[in-house]
Amino acid sequence: MFKKVKRIAVLGSTGSIGRQTLDIVRSLPDYFNVVGLATGGNLDMMAEQVAEFNPDYINFSTSGDDHDRQSRFKKIGCDFISLEEMASHPNVDTVVIAVSGAAGLGAALAAAKAGKNIALANKESLVAAGSIITAAARKNFARILPVDSEHSAIWQCLAGEKQSPRRIILTASGGPFRNYTREQMKSITIEQALAHPSWRMGRKATVDSATLMNKGLEAIEAHWLFNVPVEDVEVIVHPQSIIHSMVEFIDGSVKAQLSIPDMRLPIRYALTYPDRLENRDLPHVNWKNFSNLIFEQPDMENFPCLGLAIAAGKKGGTYPAVLCAADELAVEMFLDRRIGFTDIPHLVEQVMEKHNNNPRPDIEDIMAADKWARETILEMAGRKN
Amino acid sequence: MFKKVKRIAVLGSTGSIGRQTLDIVRSLPDYFNVVGLATGGNLDMMAEQVAEFNPDYINFSTSGDDHDRQSRFKKIGCDFISLEEMASHPNVDTVVIAVSGAAGLGAALAAAKAGKNIALANKESLVAAGSIITAAARKNFARILPVDSEHSAIWQCLAGEKQSPRRIILTASGGPFRNYTREQMKSITIEQALAHPSWRMGRKATVDSATLMNKGLEAIEAHWLFNVPVEDVEVIVHPQSIIHSMVEFIDGSVKAQLSIPDMRLPIRYALTYPDRLENRDLPHVNWKNFSNLIFEQPDMENFPCLGLAIAAGKKGGTYPAVLCAADELAVEMFLDRRIGFTDIPHLVEQVMEKHNNNPRPDIEDIMAADKWARETILEMAGRKN
Repeated sequence: MFKKVKRIAVLGSTGSIGRQTLDIVRSLPDYFNVVGLATGGNLDMMAEQVAEFNPDYINFSTSGDDHDRQSRFKKIGCDFISLEEMASHPNVDTVVIAVSGAAGLGAALAAAKAGKNIALANKESLVAAGSIITAAARKNFARILPVDSEHSAIWQCLAGEKQSPRRIILTASGGPFRNYTREQMKSITIEQALAHPSWRMGRKATVDSATLMNKGLEAIEAHWLFNVPVEDVEVIVHPQSIIHSMVEFIDGSVKAQLSIPDMRLPIRYALTYPDRLENRDLPHVNWKNFSNLIFEQPDMENFPCLGLAIAAGKKGGTYPAVLCAADELAVEMFLDRRIGFTDIPHLVEQVMEKHNNNPRPDIEDIMAADKWARETILEMAGRKN
Repeated sequence: MFKKVKRIAVLGSTGSIGRQTLDIVRSLPDYFNVVGLATGGNLDMMAEQVAEFNPDYINFSTSGDDHDRQSRFKKIGCDFISLEEMASHPNVDTVVIAVSGAAGLGAALAAAKAGKNIALANKESLVAAGSIITAAARKNFARILPVDSEHSAIWQCLAGEKQSPRRIILTASGGPFRNYTREQMKSITIEQALAHPSWRMGRKATVDSATLMNKGLEAIEAHWLFNVPVEDVEVIVHPQSIIHSMVEFIDGSVKAQLSIPDMRLPIRYALTYPDRLENRDLPHVNWKNFSNLIFEQPDMENFPCLGLAIAAGKKGGTYPAVLCAADELAVEMFLDRRIGFTDIPHLVEQVMEKHNNNPRPDIEDIMAADKWARETILEMAGRKN
């Protein structure tokens, strides 16, 4: 049944999603062949991965003495190629795009143009350039396979449905500060922001989840992935993270996807789609442990990032790219202890307000808006300090 | 998109499901053509339905001066044919089988042999003769379209899935006596038993829902409809009746189907499948009204019918037919105030204990077991009174 080996490239192999992807590959040795690996900077871990999976192609993006580093891998038979080359390589069936930021966007676009299966964990691609990526994918019969638990849930709920959904109900854990008062929000530390109650993720994603920016970005992604207006994406807080999202159809029927929160499930689904493979590692939902599932409305006042993202999504054009870039830098500044937690939405909002939208951007316009947002927020933060 | 008119026959048109089916037909006049109508006894309502929908074929099963009654409808151009003839008539695309008891079984079997789309609300068909009905349907490319909210939920969750489910989680409202003490159970009146908290159904189904027999019968139906062992059907109590059932897959992922409880949704889905049509009558699930969804384990001591049904399902053979027939009569006796509420499981259990199973019955064996169960329970009840 599962004869055909899938040849995969993992972009961002040393990050959280990348490592979990390789865990799955390890558990299904007859199913995958790792053709390419790319990392942002963790070369030691990369060397271990290369020794284990023996890829033909590698990429890494550390600055410094690249020539020496490249030759270290060349000796063991790996060719150093660009992320775009790897994402569009004829020997690759499925590209896992788990690098963050603009690098992921370029790779996603290259993969879309090359008609690949794209297991997409990079948020920026769809948020900043959803119209371009999805158009390229449609044109070249590429398939975007969402890796996020929420989008995977929606995708699973849409399986076998002929019609577009009437509404998407995106669930949010609410993050660690769900019940905080306005006053408590002001003194949130990095340590608090990095302690997510239900999901283990990278640092940037964890902070985005604490500000609810994550959920706003996901609303924009859902809009592009499932062709639903941003207006029809509703966010509800579900702190237990058991229901990963829901879809409402025109007849009033709603489908939900549930599981114990574990990123390996959506990653696995994206990699083995349309098959589901047995997963002994994942405990099943034991209804003896759940006497109730809780839902709340999101607190838009304490979490202005959610409203900012939804507004950017509704406006469209270059706004989402600006939102994305400004947020990336604001979170970085927060993690560098340069700004406070509530400064994140504040700075993002200011950048958004200064932006002149380009309603129908091409990829260069998006890159330019991204650059402009980064410069603008740095300038603002500089003035502030 | 919805050009082709579906020619339907509604068996049990004056009952709860039948009337709701005709409501849907009325709301979609370009979509359906009512070719046949059959009723158990309400000839006045039937006359109104005939005047409105102008079917070619009718059937009714009242005793008395049938010849006069038949000619009353003959004058307005209706042919009186048997339920089996109607269910298998070449002019019929979809048969709604909403008559209860053995009459429904015969019609379902005729429809399965004739390769029809069978919108099946009659529980007895699958409970008593699941192996025979499903085999006939497979052989003749008939399609069984479940009308029950629970089975419709499971069916919707299985759309687009290639693999069989690992587990089915059947939700039960728990009925009106969910929190009753052992003592309170003993003095339940008919009026209390007929006041269901979330669903409006016929009298028999409402009492079955109060004893949880309904849920046990549904577990057996789910086993046949979705090819899952009875052992892998788990019942959980969900008093709000928002989640109508769930399916767990081998990878640990669970899908659930939700809606405001309203039988018109599953009936509509069965009739318009694979399309979903807009449903303005049905209020959508407003998450502002649900702060939590509640789940409990079923109380097997206060509701022994659930355990009896699951045991009959696991044993198979003629046991489920005996269970079904004994329950039908026990509920009738309860509604006639001849026995108490807790006598229902008691009598059913005694009949089950007396039964000699036939592990591989044909349809005659099933009819014989049904007859035996009816005689046996009447005899027992007679001795008791």
